[in-house]
Amino acid sequence: MTTVTIIGTGNMGSAIAGVLEKGGSTVQSLDHDSLAAATIEGEIVVLAVPYPALADIAAKFGDQLAGKTVVDITNPLDFSTFDSLVVAADGSAAAELQASLPTSRVLKAFNTNFAATLSSGKVGTETTTVLIAGDDAEAKASLIAAVEAGGLTAVDAGSLSRARELEALGFLQLTLAAGEKIGWTGGFALIR
Amino acid sequence: MTTVTIIGTGNMGSAIAGVLEKGGSTVQSLDHDSLAAATIEGEIVVLAVPYPALADIAAKFGDQLAGKTVVDITNPLDFSTFDSLVVAADGSAAAELQASLPTSRVLKAFNTNFAATLSSGKVGTETTTVLIAGDDAEAKASLIAAVEAGGLTAVDAGSLSRARELEALGFLQLTLAAGEKIGWTGGFALIR
Repeated sequence: MTTVTIIGTGNMGSAIAGVLEKGGSTVQSLDHDSLAAATIEGEIVVLAVPYPALADIAAKFGDQLAGKTVVDITNPLDFSTFDSLVVAADGSAAAELQASLPTSRVLKAFNTNFAATLSSGKVGTETTTVLIAGDDAEAKASLIAAVEAGGLTAVDAGSLSRARELEALGFLQLTLAAGEKIGWTGGFALIR
Repeated sequence: MTTVTIIGTGNMGSAIAGVLEKGGSTVQSLDHDSLAAATIEGEIVVLAVPYPALADIAAKFGDQLAGKTVVDITNPLDFSTFDSLVVAADGSAAAELQASLPTSRVLKAFNTNFAATLSSGKVGTETTTVLIAGDDAEAKASLIAAVEAGGLTAVDAGSLSRARELEALGFLQLTLAAGEKIGWTGGFALIR
């Protein structure tokens, strides 16, 4: 059984906690206030926070996150324009996080999933797929197993450099929803 | 009724021709050899060619393409590594094409669709969606109508700057298929 700490108790954090608990993982959920006083227990730590909060968490809790699998779920949009990402064009939020946590095993995951599709397990009538990118095969395999135990499909989307494409996909999907081309219960379903 | 010229008679060109003909468009299909001697008849011109061929077509046929809607379907992958695109990190093949054809109305479309899903009209059991980005609303509306008449769903994915995200999505989908995570009849289905 996997122990997962989820930092962030918003829509996404709650939905991810639900999936992992359903799959038998032990979940420690920490909000911003409780984080300072807590010990991070999980082997896997999901940072279910907005992009701007990543740097502060890495700075303050880097020691506790050393050696752990750290999951970045962010979509680093420029929310003032909804027309670009705020990370370097050839980079990603996940790559930035890996640089700031060099001894953690950073994965990109969940950023292409709307919260409702994690909770329901469905995008329309299709099973929700969690796309996971990262450089550490063991870390990916562990998260894939935890997600699949929770009834979703999880797919290894490649190395951490693919986070750039996952963030582009998350961005595109958000613009389609904001533009009412799709609903927040829809989005991209991956068909085998 | 729309007249469409499709340059390129490979899998993608043939599949796109099939969709548009089914929708009642008049389709002129030209391969590389016949192109030199032909007059491009379509108001919409689909460049169903690999990315490296775009520059040559723009250079040789720019005069004929002036004022027309020109559709870029390419995924500009570095096929030697399958690990990056060959266009600028903050650009896209479509943006390059628009720069080389300043008086054409360039659209990005079909690059997120595998040929088989255009021919069958389905990604798994979901209706195939063609994502279309471009700066000219009228050009987009015309292509959307032609595609939807052919039985597929077509969605306005935003301005031509969104071609960058469509190319990231096309790239990601190709890596998933090449890595046998999905089949060539599958891929990303857009669920409303």
